[in-house]
Amino acid sequence: MAVADGKMKDLSISEIPKKKDGNPKKAAKKPQQQKKKIEGAALIGIDVAKEDDLGEWYQQVVTKGQMISYYDVSGCYILEPSSYAIWMTIREWFTKKISTLKVREAYFPLFISTDNLEREKEHIEGFAAEVAWVTKGGKSDLEKPIAVRPTSETAMYPYFARKIQSHRDLPLKLNQWNNVVRWEFKNPMPFIRTREFLWQEGHTAHLTEEEASKEVSQILDWYSDVYQELLAVPVVKGVKTENEKFPGAKRTETIEGFIPATGRGIQAATSHALGQHFSKMFDITVEDPHAKEAGKASDKIYVWQNSWGLTTRSIGVLILTHGDNRGLVIPPRVAEKQVVLIPVGITVKTSPEARKELYDKVEKMAEDLTSVGVRVEVDLREGYSPGWKFNDWEMKGVPLRIEFGPKDAEKGQVTTSRRDIEDKNEARGEIKVDDLKTAVPELLEKIQSDMFNKADKAYRDHRVQVTNWDDFVPKLNGKNVLLVPHCQGGKCEDEVKAKSARTSIGDGAAEDAKAPSMGAKSLCIPHEQPEGIKAGQTKCINPDCSAPAKSWVLFGRSY
Amino acid sequence: MAVADGKMKDLSISEIPKKKDGNPKKAAKKPQQQKKKIEGAALIGIDVAKEDDLGEWYQQVVTKGQMISYYDVSGCYILEPSSYAIWMTIREWFTKKISTLKVREAYFPLFISTDNLEREKEHIEGFAAEVAWVTKGGKSDLEKPIAVRPTSETAMYPYFARKIQSHRDLPLKLNQWNNVVRWEFKNPMPFIRTREFLWQEGHTAHLTEEEASKEVSQILDWYSDVYQELLAVPVVKGVKTENEKFPGAKRTETIEGFIPATGRGIQAATSHALGQHFSKMFDITVEDPHAKEAGKASDKIYVWQNSWGLTTRSIGVLILTHGDNRGLVIPPRVAEKQVVLIPVGITVKTSPEARKELYDKVEKMAEDLTSVGVRVEVDLREGYSPGWKFNDWEMKGVPLRIEFGPKDAEKGQVTTSRRDIEDKNEARGEIKVDDLKTAVPELLEKIQSDMFNKADKAYRDHRVQVTNWDDFVPKLNGKNVLLVPHCQGGKCEDEVKAKSARTSIGDGAAEDAKAPSMGAKSLCIPHEQPEGIKAGQTKCINPDCSAPAKSWVLFGRSY
Repeated sequence: MAVADGKMKDLSISEIPKKKDGNPKKAAKKPQQQKKKIEGAALIGIDVAKEDDLGEWYQQVVTKGQMISYYDVSGCYILEPSSYAIWMTIREWFTKKISTLKVREAYFPLFISTDNLEREKEHIEGFAAEVAWVTKGGKSDLEKPIAVRPTSETAMYPYFARKIQSHRDLPLKLNQWNNVVRWEFKNPMPFIRTREFLWQEGHTAHLTEEEASKEVSQILDWYSDVYQELLAVPVVKGVKTENEKFPGAKRTETIEGFIPATGRGIQAATSHALGQHFSKMFDITVEDPHAKEAGKASDKIYVWQNSWGLTTRSIGVLILTHGDNRGLVIPPRVAEKQVVLIPVGITVKTSPEARKELYDKVEKMAEDLTSVGVRVEVDLREGYSPGWKFNDWEMKGVPLRIEFGPKDAEKGQVTTSRRDIEDKNEARGEIKVDDLKTAVPELLEKIQSDMFNKADKAYRDHRVQVTNWDDFVPKLNGKNVLLVPHCQGGKCEDEVKAKSARTSIGDGAAEDAKAPSMGAKSLCIPHEQPEGIKAGQTKCINPDCSAPAKSWVLFGRSY
Repeated sequence: MAVADGKMKDLSISEIPKKKDGNPKKAAKKPQQQKKKIEGAALIGIDVAKEDDLGEWYQQVVTKGQMISYYDVSGCYILEPSSYAIWMTIREWFTKKISTLKVREAYFPLFISTDNLEREKEHIEGFAAEVAWVTKGGKSDLEKPIAVRPTSETAMYPYFARKIQSHRDLPLKLNQWNNVVRWEFKNPMPFIRTREFLWQEGHTAHLTEEEASKEVSQILDWYSDVYQELLAVPVVKGVKTENEKFPGAKRTETIEGFIPATGRGIQAATSHALGQHFSKMFDITVEDPHAKEAGKASDKIYVWQNSWGLTTRSIGVLILTHGDNRGLVIPPRVAEKQVVLIPVGITVKTSPEARKELYDKVEKMAEDLTSVGVRVEVDLREGYSPGWKFNDWEMKGVPLRIEFGPKDAEKGQVTTSRRDIEDKNEARGEIKVDDLKTAVPELLEKIQSDMFNKADKAYRDHRVQVTNWDDFVPKLNGKNVLLVPHCQGGKCEDEVKAKSARTSIGDGAAEDAKAPSMGAKSLCIPHEQPEGIKAGQTKCINPDCSAPAKSWVLFGRSY
């Protein structure tokens, strides 16, 4: 389902209203001009089904839903207010969590000197191919090119070396919310694979491996919570294999998501135990405080470091997971607007007084809901039919619509419509006006948990245990990720990838344009291991591998 | 007082502990090693007086006070947690304010295409000399260099052109908090002049000039509040002259600060009425909604745009304004820690029980203060004398110290010491333990207003009205900024600058190393105009200028 760069640009350009001389904005899509035509969706709505062309659907959903706007530098996108609001919700939530670990916020420079960037060998090898280089300032060539940070390990650790002089300076825990650049040459995709993205990167140093390790897991738990509790997106916790771990890390813990529409896995966030690789390269040491009591000569200890990051990719996963053929579906906890209130049933016969009365009641409801912390929008736009408004807010993914008309007023109730349920009748409900302040927050929480449960079921249904190689590719093509016994060997992993790529060409089972040629790679070694692996006895899934399986490993096509 | 780049690097390197083989960290400055020597400041303290060498003083204050750490890319600095916390306080306060105008937060890319950057002539001329260019991605040369944003007008306005299709789409109001890069070749100075800095940039589009203009002033008022109410730094509101306005703006409103130690003005924040320059270049138009009723043929209106920015420079102004010879002095409203609680009077004779009792009481006080919203640090570090701790927290600028020892306990009180008062006796006070929850917040507010009043008086004393050219340079050298009658002509302004530079060479009155050779430029045309300018009759301050003075204009040396 990856999206061609050129295609994106086309869409971007076709979106730009053409303003030719004497004929300004003829091509512009103005809601008021289209009003008549679009009763019931069509033109401004999403005009391709998610199941038919996920790539095109995604482009339409992110742009028409006003999450993203295209930009004239390839791989870079504008985060519109609706998506940035989601990011800020994540930021505030996560900042609070890590502050309980006494992680402090700081800001390190965007630029990294070549010398520092290249100091850790594995690390630079991992990033060299995708670093953006500044070579000119004004009209002068720089003496040495300067890297735009792809991540900040090498920007931060000389500082760590200066600041950490004694074990009393440990742990040192810093975090920053910033932008990073990875000049990828694969096809870009808004949120999912972009050349610039926003993220947080935490960097900490500890006296002991044990303490560092505990933090890595704690952070992973919170990343999991960001996805599961805030974004209503299920993830699997695990560890990356040697092949897939972060360049320079000793061990990478990860949460892996799943996009049912393509059957592909997606890395959701990672937390790295860096071990002592970087502390050795950057000479970050303290005297062993326990040397004496242990009867050892005083000795220096290289500190144990972690780094962990969560990116705006999370918003893309949310959209791919929950979006439907009417557009975005945003979980209530992160939705900028949780409820839209729309007056209905006003006709040409409605008196101005009756209309005002209705509007006043709607405004009063908005006040009541706001007072209990619900984020509400009231849509009193003139010149738009309720139907048009319904579509508009559905496309933007607002979780709950409340309609209120003369008939509702008579009954002292409102009509509700849940965005997460596709069947219109099932989505509908009523709430007594007097109960709004309690019933709406409850309903929003219900929507939140239903969204998670639905996505969780989809992921569970497509996480298939496979022990026989003959089932591997067919199951993969059935849009599943596969839990297989594996030796955890890097070479074997490459073989599995090559075989699952080759075999599937021309298979035709996958509807994802790119998928058939793509092999399955290891997504993670899940923390939660089913039974069945017998040490030294269970065979590795790869028929050409003679090593025994070490554990269940999750394989899949991925983003 | 500008600081040489080389000098900065030296300091940076001398700070890095030398770790030679077999002799790790001999050069490291460890508090515990230095304890004996520094009773009363010396080594870890600031060892140069603000009045003797402001440049060196500033370097020491920002580094030893842990606001900044040096970095190996010239002109880039690490914002440590203490300074970043100030920035976040400003960010939260200002975001709340602008949200009342319905300004929404968004994020636009770091990179700007050459085509877009060069679309507005004046604008690109203003920035061309200081744009950083990315020319390589990985190992490939880019087809066309891409600019790292120096500001985002040209990144955002193609988006404005797409989004604004009708007058119903107006006003469009966006803001972003991000990093920008201006590759300056002048000497860098932490916070004040840096190649990368953090800021917010607001960009808005309006149907009428009047509405746009109102917003420009409202924003300027809030910028003034950030400085005066949060940072306790006085500013003068005004308008930039033609020479000094933002490249591409119709009119730039500004707040101008003052650094008493050098007598130089400093631009604090600016709010630009862009007029229609950019909307014409980027074709941002709507149909005139009032054309019909005004009897005009339907016609397009170019929207009226504003942009406004506030940067991390503000933190530098705070430091230069309030810092003293013991280090930083942070105003309570923005201090990460407002109060430090230090147990005192513990000797070798103190029993463990008595000590525990004292510590418990201190912890209880911290809880009480936290419960009323005071940001408290308790310093129970072992192995450090109270004197050492006092110096340490004074250097970091914590506004209020609370000491509590056995004698205080007997009297049911604490001893306080205000950071903003230099005389140690005057700085001291007592508060009854029972009154802490009300008295401490009150005292913090008193410190805040006293800090502002002191700085405000210094600025007022050095804002001198001059009507005779013969007084101009002597007054300038007396560390003043000058309010002079001026014709507002650009050429005349250049002459004044040239003359005040030339004349003052060898004058010797200024203690600021760089200042004597620097001429005075116009800082602003203050909104608050004294009397005395008679239209067509008052002479311009420049004896060689034949034009009459239009208004009082504030001139000064500046950063």
